[in-house]
Amino acid sequence: MVREKGFWKRERVDEALYRLLKKIKALETEDVSVYNLQGRVLAEDIVAGFDVPKFNRAAMDGYAVKAEDTFGASVSNPIMLQLAGSVEIGEVPKVVVESGMAVRIMTGAMMPEGTNAVVMLEHTRLNGNFVEVLKSVTPMKNVSRVGEDIAAGEVVFRKGEILQPQDAGVIASLGIESVRVYRKPRVAVITTGNELAEVGEPLEGAKIYNSNNPMICNALLEFGFEAISLGIARDDEEELRNKLQKALEFDAAVITGGTSVGAKDLVPDVVGEFGEIVFHGVSMKPGMPTGAAVVEGKPVFMLPGSPAAALLGFYTFAIPALYRMMNVRIIARKWSRQKGVLQGRIPSEIGVRSNVRVLWEDGKVYPIRISGSGILSSFVRANALLVVPEDKEGYEEGEEVEVTLLRDVTEVFE
Amino acid sequence: MVREKGFWKRERVDEALYRLLKKIKALETEDVSVYNLQGRVLAEDIVAGFDVPKFNRAAMDGYAVKAEDTFGASVSNPIMLQLAGSVEIGEVPKVVVESGMAVRIMTGAMMPEGTNAVVMLEHTRLNGNFVEVLKSVTPMKNVSRVGEDIAAGEVVFRKGEILQPQDAGVIASLGIESVRVYRKPRVAVITTGNELAEVGEPLEGAKIYNSNNPMICNALLEFGFEAISLGIARDDEEELRNKLQKALEFDAAVITGGTSVGAKDLVPDVVGEFGEIVFHGVSMKPGMPTGAAVVEGKPVFMLPGSPAAALLGFYTFAIPALYRMMNVRIIARKWSRQKGVLQGRIPSEIGVRSNVRVLWEDGKVYPIRISGSGILSSFVRANALLVVPEDKEGYEEGEEVEVTLLRDVTEVFE
Repeated sequence: MVREKGFWKRERVDEALYRLLKKIKALETEDVSVYNLQGRVLAEDIVAGFDVPKFNRAAMDGYAVKAEDTFGASVSNPIMLQLAGSVEIGEVPKVVVESGMAVRIMTGAMMPEGTNAVVMLEHTRLNGNFVEVLKSVTPMKNVSRVGEDIAAGEVVFRKGEILQPQDAGVIASLGIESVRVYRKPRVAVITTGNELAEVGEPLEGAKIYNSNNPMICNALLEFGFEAISLGIARDDEEELRNKLQKALEFDAAVITGGTSVGAKDLVPDVVGEFGEIVFHGVSMKPGMPTGAAVVEGKPVFMLPGSPAAALLGFYTFAIPALYRMMNVRIIARKWSRQKGVLQGRIPSEIGVRSNVRVLWEDGKVYPIRISGSGILSSFVRANALLVVPEDKEGYEEGEEVEVTLLRDVTEVFE
Repeated sequence: MVREKGFWKRERVDEALYRLLKKIKALETEDVSVYNLQGRVLAEDIVAGFDVPKFNRAAMDGYAVKAEDTFGASVSNPIMLQLAGSVEIGEVPKVVVESGMAVRIMTGAMMPEGTNAVVMLEHTRLNGNFVEVLKSVTPMKNVSRVGEDIAAGEVVFRKGEILQPQDAGVIASLGIESVRVYRKPRVAVITTGNELAEVGEPLEGAKIYNSNNPMICNALLEFGFEAISLGIARDDEEELRNKLQKALEFDAAVITGGTSVGAKDLVPDVVGEFGEIVFHGVSMKPGMPTGAAVVEGKPVFMLPGSPAAALLGFYTFAIPALYRMMNVRIIARKWSRQKGVLQGRIPSEIGVRSNVRVLWEDGKVYPIRISGSGILSSFVRANALLVVPEDKEGYEEGEEVEVTLLRDVTEVFE
């Protein structure tokens, strides 16, 4: 017999989702290597254990000097310093510099004892064993100071950050081998219907192939979740109960089909035996018969059997709920383009493509000050990229620009 | 000694990339299960082996009838038909329908022999063993015909498609268990520099941690490529040669550091011994010293040692080249938002969120005709989603709308 019962109610999508998210908690956490952090959600704050840089280092190629020795130097009045050796990157300088001496130095190398500034190569002339300084420098000019990039004790990342390659770089530069992240949900996938045959089986009579399980499994993979297909459940309460029982060994379940109001739409009734139906019936097309329940704290998604409705329901409800299990809500996605008003001038040279790191926030775009492309923390403080193309001389303050997000913009739940 | 040599030339980013891509070929192909296709690039055309639907099926819940029996029916002039049973989805109807009979049928069920239309449930009244038809139907009304969704022999996907969940669904619905895709590149990652220590080691003297290898490995994972870290190469030609030799066991190599013009920047020279330097020096900031070579047909990326420049160089050159190895160029990314002018009216009911599948092409947005949410092929013909929010009564033809891409828009190379 055909049972024509209605939905509980047709709820607005955002309200239904909100009520569902409120009933879900974050999963436990695990330690993951800095080589495998991509897309993982941080479950702890990351604090710098030491200053970066750990030592004063040259920020330019040139000569390390005592700044005081260069005072008054100009092209018309070069000051001669004695070349006292060179320092390579990674090497502890052996030379101790006294007044009147200069040491050849490369960007990133440790400043030798006794020096406090770097004269850029282009402001010097090498003359045998002597260096002619053509421009004076002030103390600490062209030097990256201890802790300038990141200070010891600074919170570099907050819990809830969805980690990106640049974050893995910063974490590694702090000497941290692994960090605590939320476990990724493992999701069981079931499809229901007497009409279904598994791919690989012959297609007899009025059967059609089970396309929803491969589709939903791939949709889970797309977001990095683990997918476990439990195959087809016939339209039979006992079989559904058994599959659901098996699904509850994992962190969440997606069931497609059997959610409507027909005689064989048993899913909501069976799921309701196990736990609380949070909603069933939403004001969404396609996908009115979409529903969700929470069983033993685990979300169970009841999606329509028609593939397009199932996939749209999955993206609308399951993805936010699965991220909720990792304690975050994604407000704007990495790589999406966003508009904003520039809060400072950005100069760029004609003929050069400049990749400018910026912070995009509330429709405003803030340039991030960078003291060299080696400064990793700029990539943490910035969340977006503004590309100045070759044919543009930069952008003016107040201009509307479009930026590309370099990380997901998120909100944390707990 | 310090060697101050210049770059070959500073080439525009797009020109350098173009010349690199021309020298790379696609990798071999492999068979992958329909459960694991996400993001893989199709290496063959997919042809439907049978019609979808394979049989005429009901497109609505209601009664299967002979359309001719309903001619003239209206609310004021109901036509009485005898209820002759019901057909469930997946079942081959046992009843043969004769004139004057009606069979209860569910959406998706096989049409019984002798019927050619479905009267929607809401246009009927059940009266004991009789069905009152309140509205006439024409032949094939509310019926999905054989081959209506996909015709046998139709090319459903072309080589070069980056497969999405909905594609896996369509491929499964055609009974195809696995398809031929390009192998994903396996990429070796090397960083160079005497100043580097591996995370986990104590940080002595003027050393800094190797942050580039974890960063680049995570960036490879972000796009689903396999990353193999070969660790640090000291600034020593022999060590670099050995690492590069090892890297050539894989499909591509990323080397960071040692690409500039200092004495210890040995990378371009050593790489040049193995193969052809395609470019070295680009008009890009940060990242001027970026270069790439092709060795034994494999791309070798020479990225600056400073992390921000390395990552931006990786995204700018390595990602397009690695996709080239899978035979595609991505023009617009999945999930990105795109604007376009609507080429037809899209109605929507107030209070309902409509997810409308559309085709976005050259700044135009074409609504895709759908005969029910079960029609999978609409998800293949459409490449974007237009969401009509609850408070809008649809969009008019000619309106500018913003859509979300549901697949990468790509170009194929070979």
